[in-house]
Amino acid sequence: MSRLAEAAASLVEAGRRMDARAWVPGSAGNLSARLDGESVAITRSGVHKGRLKAEDIIEVSLEGVAREQGQRPSAETLLHCQLYRLFPPVGAVLHGHSVAATVLSMTDGPIYFSGYEVVKAFGFATHELDVELPVFENDQDIGRLAGVIEPMLVEDAPIGYVIRGHGVYAWGSSVEHAFWRLEALEFLLTCELERRKIK
Amino acid sequence: MSRLAEAAASLVEAGRRMDARAWVPGSAGNLSARLDGESVAITRSGVHKGRLKAEDIIEVSLEGVAREQGQRPSAETLLHCQLYRLFPPVGAVLHGHSVAATVLSMTDGPIYFSGYEVVKAFGFATHELDVELPVFENDQDIGRLAGVIEPMLVEDAPIGYVIRGHGVYAWGSSVEHAFWRLEALEFLLTCELERRKIK
Amino acid sequence: MSRLAEAAASLVEAGRRMDARAWVPGSAGNLSARLDGESVAITRSGVHKGRLKAEDIIEVSLEGVAREQGQRPSAETLLHCQLYRLFPPVGAVLHGHSVAATVLSMTDGPIYFSGYEVVKAFGFATHELDVELPVFENDQDIGRLAGVIEPMLVEDAPIGYVIRGHGVYAWGSSVEHAFWRLEALEFLLTCELERRKIK
Amino acid sequence: MSRLAEAAASLVEAGRRMDARAWVPGSAGNLSARLDGESVAITRSGVHKGRLKAEDIIEVSLEGVAREQGQRPSAETLLHCQLYRLFPPVGAVLHGHSVAATVLSMTDGPIYFSGYEVVKAFGFATHELDVELPVFENDQDIGRLAGVIEPMLVEDAPIGYVIRGHGVYAWGSSVEHAFWRLEALEFLLTCELERRKIK
Repeated sequence: MSRLAEAAASLVEAGRRMDARAWVPGSAGNLSARLDGESVAITRSGVHKGRLKAEDIIEVSLEGVAREQGQRPSAETLLHCQLYRLFPPVGAVLHGHSVAATVLSMTDGPIYFSGYEVVKAFGFATHELDVELPVFENDQDIGRLAGVIEPMLVEDAPIGYVIRGHGVYAWGSSVEHAFWRLEALEFLLTCELERRKIK
Repeated sequence: MSRLAEAAASLVEAGRRMDARAWVPGSAGNLSARLDGESVAITRSGVHKGRLKAEDIIEVSLEGVAREQGQRPSAETLLHCQLYRLFPPVGAVLHGHSVAATVLSMTDGPIYFSGYEVVKAFGFATHELDVELPVFENDQDIGRLAGVIEPMLVEDAPIGYVIRGHGVYAWGSSVEHAFWRLEALEFLLTCELERRKIK
Repeated sequence: MSRLAEAAASLVEAGRRMDARAWVPGSAGNLSARLDGESVAITRSGVHKGRLKAEDIIEVSLEGVAREQGQRPSAETLLHCQLYRLFPPVGAVLHGHSVAATVLSMTDGPIYFSGYEVVKAFGFATHELDVELPVFENDQDIGRLAGVIEPMLVEDAPIGYVIRGHGVYAWGSSVEHAFWRLEALEFLLTCELERRKIK
Repeated sequence: MSRLAEAAASLVEAGRRMDARAWVPGSAGNLSARLDGESVAITRSGVHKGRLKAEDIIEVSLEGVAREQGQRPSAETLLHCQLYRLFPPVGAVLHGHSVAATVLSMTDGPIYFSGYEVVKAFGFATHELDVELPVFENDQDIGRLAGVIEPMLVEDAPIGYVIRGHGVYAWGSSVEHAFWRLEALEFLLTCELERRKIK
């Protein structure tokens, strides 16, 4: 099996699991995996991420250009490629639109996770810290949005980030690892949303 | 496979997916697909939409009359036919009863979606707008209800609509496309419901 | 297939569907179906209702006595038998413990459903009415509890009932019909619970 | 089939069911079963509990030491072993991270369940009592945490316990029984969380 076919199989499965959690409504979300130092496998535009077929995963350069003419990668391909360029250990990027991420991102102020055991999923050795999840303003100009995000990525190496009204970006060394981190992030976001209801 | 059999297969599957999201409690909801310029495939009355069989999908005219004598289409067939008559590109209509749609429709005032990326599922080019989801009073006289809805459909071409205490109508160019738009609507409704809990 | 085996197959499937909705935590809940004028098939005590096997369904008399010596029917068998004795059209009874039913039953006052289209699942011709779901105090003496419930059943023929901190009883002409009514009840209860969060 | 293989099959299945309820985000949670008076089967560190394979279950002594060199049991193995040492009837221990347990554990004061029928899952004969679920401060030093928990286990024989910001420990005579009790605990926790939203 080619690297693209292998990556596609993992991404199809990850999309199915994201859909089972209702994180990819309509054709929302996009999923990718690094193929090598030069190329990335990513979902093409306008498909349901819970019902992907292998042919819905296409190959793009690290600059986000489709290898095959006429293929149209996800609109937010540049945000994926940015992570692959900046962080060599990143092997996969998952972006979903959950209710918790969307709703919390529309409230004031940044999102912090304090006292949660689950933050250890991001490599921390203890629960006794405040972990920030950065929130950025949404922007239909993805190049400009990437430019706004880049300094934060370089300086803070965050556990993920949220685009306001838009959803979560999570990543990891493999598709499976990225899914674990996405699941941990969504758990933390849901906990925070629930806590705001009982205050 | 006949057009009716093809449409039935798509509707059976869409019903299964709606049921997995708990949008069709009891025998609630109804699903349809355009067969051609003259006919529509629609679920018959009194069946569970999550466990449809091919024979639960029957053919009706654009006026909502069953092609085969003795068959009883869904009570709300006229609302489906109205959409097919008014909008030639509409290929499928899905109506479900979600908790979020029902609860929000019972609060005061119209429902607006502001700042959500997911509104792009309805063809908008940006998240920077307020999209209205119209709410109509429920009425057991479906012909009269259709009469109340019609001017709004013609003038505003809304992204869908809600009947108070009753649920959502969504549509699209195909059953799959209508499901995506229903999923996007339900996501937006759930986000709005959650936001009202933390205000 | 014997009537008992047929009933068992339907109840196994209904239990699986109730479990998928998280309505039967632990070994909670019980399910039954009428076999004939004299006998009822009912889940035995101490089994998980989401993973029933045919042998977990046993036959009891309308007085709740197991036909086979040594078999132990559900503790609440008498509440099932009461419904079969009082209402000849009742063919199945489902009892589950949902979060919504439990939480609402622990608030003050009765539970009313007003303005919901879904009440038509119970045979009403319109949504324009207030439908009461009676709530009874829980009692470990099931015979005594049945005595408290009986007058209400006879006089009001309610759409179901709730035992405080304990869950819902729903019924119908068949297992499938009882499941539809249970699903409609749970939908209405969830809507009411959600409405109380945004007031 | 060896006792280890049998235990592994049960734990793989229990993990799958916990994941279906979203109780094991990322690589969170751990699951174990007693093999005999000297040994325990337990999930190894760093695997997703919803997608366990038989080789992810390893054998440890009652002191938590892996039987095979190089194998790394779950970080919280000592908390499992503590329960097996103190309570000979305990045959399985399940630890998950649900949203309800995490959120409630981060509020003030202990958690009580009052008036719930479902507490009978823990052997009580009536719903008319207040059952406490102890909450402990989280601690990355598991030996020290076990030392804090031990007196409470010995004196109160609780129905389970919660570690703040971290999740629930439940146990039973078998993996299936432990799952029932976990499911009952999670049901009670969800009910309490919902009740705090409508007060």
